[in-house]
Amino acid sequence: MLPFDLTEYQERLLQTKERMAERNIDVLLLTDPSNMNYITGYDAWSFYVHQMVAIIIDEPQPLWFGRYQDANGAKLTTWVYDENIIAYPDFYVHAATDDHPMDFIGEILQQIGQGTRRLGVEMDNYYFSAKAFARLQRALPNATFVDGDLLVNRVRLIKSPTELSYMQKAATIADKAMHHGLEAIRANVRECDAAAAIFYHLVSGTEESGGDYPSIVPLMPAGSNTGIPHLTWSERKFQEGDSVIVELAGCYKRYHVPLARTVSIGQPNDALLKLAPIVTEGIEAVLQKAKPGVTCSDLEAAWRNVIARYGLEKEARLGYSVGLGYPPDWGEHTASIRKGDNTVLEPNMTFHLIPALWYDNFGIEISETIRITEAGAATFTNYPRELIVQHPFLLNQHGGEIS
Amino acid sequence: MLPFDLTEYQERLLQTKERMAERNIDVLLLTDPSNMNYITGYDAWSFYVHQMVAIIIDEPQPLWFGRYQDANGAKLTTWVYDENIIAYPDFYVHAATDDHPMDFIGEILQQIGQGTRRLGVEMDNYYFSAKAFARLQRALPNATFVDGDLLVNRVRLIKSPTELSYMQKAATIADKAMHHGLEAIRANVRECDAAAAIFYHLVSGTEESGGDYPSIVPLMPAGSNTGIPHLTWSERKFQEGDSVIVELAGCYKRYHVPLARTVSIGQPNDALLKLAPIVTEGIEAVLQKAKPGVTCSDLEAAWRNVIARYGLEKEARLGYSVGLGYPPDWGEHTASIRKGDNTVLEPNMTFHLIPALWYDNFGIEISETIRITEAGAATFTNYPRELIVQHPFLLNQHGGEIS
Repeated sequence: MLPFDLTEYQERLLQTKERMAERNIDVLLLTDPSNMNYITGYDAWSFYVHQMVAIIIDEPQPLWFGRYQDANGAKLTTWVYDENIIAYPDFYVHAATDDHPMDFIGEILQQIGQGTRRLGVEMDNYYFSAKAFARLQRALPNATFVDGDLLVNRVRLIKSPTELSYMQKAATIADKAMHHGLEAIRANVRECDAAAAIFYHLVSGTEESGGDYPSIVPLMPAGSNTGIPHLTWSERKFQEGDSVIVELAGCYKRYHVPLARTVSIGQPNDALLKLAPIVTEGIEAVLQKAKPGVTCSDLEAAWRNVIARYGLEKEARLGYSVGLGYPPDWGEHTASIRKGDNTVLEPNMTFHLIPALWYDNFGIEISETIRITEAGAATFTNYPRELIVQHPFLLNQHGGEIS
Repeated sequence: MLPFDLTEYQERLLQTKERMAERNIDVLLLTDPSNMNYITGYDAWSFYVHQMVAIIIDEPQPLWFGRYQDANGAKLTTWVYDENIIAYPDFYVHAATDDHPMDFIGEILQQIGQGTRRLGVEMDNYYFSAKAFARLQRALPNATFVDGDLLVNRVRLIKSPTELSYMQKAATIADKAMHHGLEAIRANVRECDAAAAIFYHLVSGTEESGGDYPSIVPLMPAGSNTGIPHLTWSERKFQEGDSVIVELAGCYKRYHVPLARTVSIGQPNDALLKLAPIVTEGIEAVLQKAKPGVTCSDLEAAWRNVIARYGLEKEARLGYSVGLGYPPDWGEHTASIRKGDNTVLEPNMTFHLIPALWYDNFGIEISETIRITEAGAATFTNYPRELIVQHPFLLNQHGGEIS
């Protein structure tokens, strides 16, 4: 079942331990499902209850902690020995009592001699709540807690050949889902029906590569709401003249390739016609600038120089490191393409470059997921990088007949 | 855009403030997206960044805090006045610096005179990380923090007529998606293709009611993995003789009705044939027992008495309160149907009753989402409550021809 060779997991563990040693972290307590997966392979939708992977710097095997009913899943999907899979009883889950899973986990860590060491915890992760931390501190009063947030995420920044091959499969799925999704977006079609078409193709994938669930559902603001990027869909029917933004990600074995496009149902308005070539010119400038040795901040400057010539500004970051992910986010939370992010690009870093422009009553998104190569940058998907126009009753540009 | 009358939101706010007053909470800081939605209507996939709704006990309007690019979504989807929608700049998001959104939110709360009051925070919510709490404490050194976790969730326990009507629509969607999903589960079909069919119908919904995304993706353990409830799907093809568990939820305007069934591709094995009637007998016993005045613990006892007669035990809870939800869970985290949960049933409480049995190499799930009525309990869905058997080359029991 493991999606990577055991040697790849060992290399990840080694790199993680090197970073732990640099920061004098004896035990790293991972609660981010992406990091748990990255280190052990663990894959299940069990992260709605507390769980953890503990990396002890002088032990060869991580420990997996989770709910009793999930322990067999850990045995199935990880390379962790069965004796290192430790399950807590069900009464800890959303307990009516004062019990908390971190009481149990803390007690085990105490029993196995980790209670006086320096413990790294992922302080700003969704799956490490304020209470989880409080209970862990109470259970381990003689431990020293340090912030280990993003330590593994930083190891994840540079992708291996197998990771890149999974992202390439995800890219093919993204292209296919975008194609069928935009085909479905027409006047008098409900937004939910277009979203359903996108979901179908994201999950079915291709004949060669079955799809996985993306960490974010398709985002689909339409009409005057296209300035609001994180809306999903409704039962409303698309109207002639609407523009619609579709942001989705193909996902293969939890690896994501996001892709955003803006489509106009019929003739686009003047604002979109004006903005689309500026955005694509800006993307081109970033792609030209991107190569090893350049910083994320340099990429932002390349974009800003382009749009400033047109009198435009952008408030939000242009993009972020992307790859392995679980809900609620496919971003890795490390490098962002923004002013002041001095992350130096290296080969096989991957970013979602999404230099969207949002205004009060409309917006435009055209994005690319890119890989830093030895000499520059390459995109993962092949979808036309332009404002897409659906002309009713005509063959559309992708050769599909629109009825 | 609001899915409920303004009076319903006012009633929710009133009930919340009554509970705040009982606990001497002056300001309740909501970070659970379900609770933010319940109080204000806010609906967008923006919860991957820090955001908050603050209820000040002596102010009529809540405050919404979030990212700049999401503020227009708050204006669109909530009843909160525009001047109470407060956005932080983008550099706070996954910052390369030491900035954190809770620094910003804490400073605003200080400025508006809330810095010395008793503040309730949702200590065990996914979206209130250990770091969020630490930064809020630092920004508000003279405030008193108390655990306000689940305070609004407890208001949510009893559903209004409109909430129930949404759950009924979700139930219709669940029935439809289960029907099409089980139709798709056949020998030589990839698991991902069946998952895609389920997703299509969950999101498309019915002609009358477009679907929303469920907070958990369809769970689909197959074959010898049916004892592992939280597995999703793979590229593997189903085999003749496999059993497959499908747990899904129809969702309408964020309200969920979960439904689980076990299907056998061809002749079921003896274990399933033995267990299925025990599970349905146990469900029937729970339904007979359920009525206002009875406790969740009583329901568990009714189940336990049935299965004990067959020499069986069950480790995990039988079910949980269900309704409004955002990823990663559709459960409400309040009442559980388990031994020791003394929640007293009241009319219009709603539960997902999922008395699954899991063993090392197989399992069975047959579930119902139920509503407590004035005199008993009623189910939401109409799907046959039995082990489903797919007979190849025959008309199946739902009238669909299986090719």
